[in-house]
Amino acid sequence: MKQSVPEDHTGMGVLPLETCLEHLSSARIGRVAFLADGYPIILPVNHGVDHGTVVFRTTEGSKLDAAELQLPVAFEVDGFDAERRTGWSVLVRGIAAPVASPAEIARLSELRVWPWADSVSRTSWVRITAHEITGRQIVHHYNY
Amino acid sequence: MKQSVPEDHTGMGVLPLETCLEHLSSARIGRVAFLADGYPIILPVNHGVDHGTVVFRTTEGSKLDAAELQLPVAFEVDGFDAERRTGWSVLVRGIAAPVASPAEIARLSELRVWPWADSVSRTSWVRITAHEITGRQIVHHYNY
Repeated sequence: MKQSVPEDHTGMGVLPLETCLEHLSSARIGRVAFLADGYPIILPVNHGVDHGTVVFRTTEGSKLDAAELQLPVAFEVDGFDAERRTGWSVLVRGIAAPVASPAEIARLSELRVWPWADSVSRTSWVRITAHEITGRQIVHHYNY
Repeated sequence: MKQSVPEDHTGMGVLPLETCLEHLSSARIGRVAFLADGYPIILPVNHGVDHGTVVFRTTEGSKLDAAELQLPVAFEVDGFDAERRTGWSVLVRGIAAPVASPAEIARLSELRVWPWADSVSRTSWVRITAHEITGRQIVHHYNY
């Protein structure tokens, strides 16, 4: 069965932006990547989506340092079905920054982004403002 | 119930190296992060583990470019249980490089690392040699 989705040069199906935004909103965890001490690092977070930006809560550490330096970051969510050997991923590339305004923090608190890791309180918010949101899905050119 | 695992400064439980290596071997997909055009990117791959290194197959594109430049990369696997609000992640930080030797490629082929994305053949292998492997798990200081 020939799929109708457009494909990139590696044969991956290209997801429409609307689907990317739906996946970003519904995923319970995502992964943020940035340079820490000059080398890439990937850390999982519980995130929310606020007017097209990705927000998450954190405490002192490399993620907050990256935000204070307004570093470029990548953020990824994905979903897979091992049995059918298929899956999708959504990639956000943008800039991280701390959320400083108490009014903004109060508003974000209503998004109900509760980190599962709650043994240390995570009261600082980081916002990732995207300059690019892309998504891919595995396409199989045969029937199951 | 007080957990017995050591914790980091954010209250996350620190996984022993042996557990990290088990998770790396059993995970069906992982995510590789590196700089592409100067900005971080995160891409999922189907990987294998070969003598403590992470290997995956790819085709022409940013992952192979990163390997040819022997860029520093991060590689992550994780697992989550949304209902219990818990999970773990393992992070590999190291250097990517293409696998050039036909004998090595023949040997790696026996690892049975078959990319689920198979509409374009992925005949190039990339190896990530770690300088650091770390793992974390969410610790809840209460009974369920």
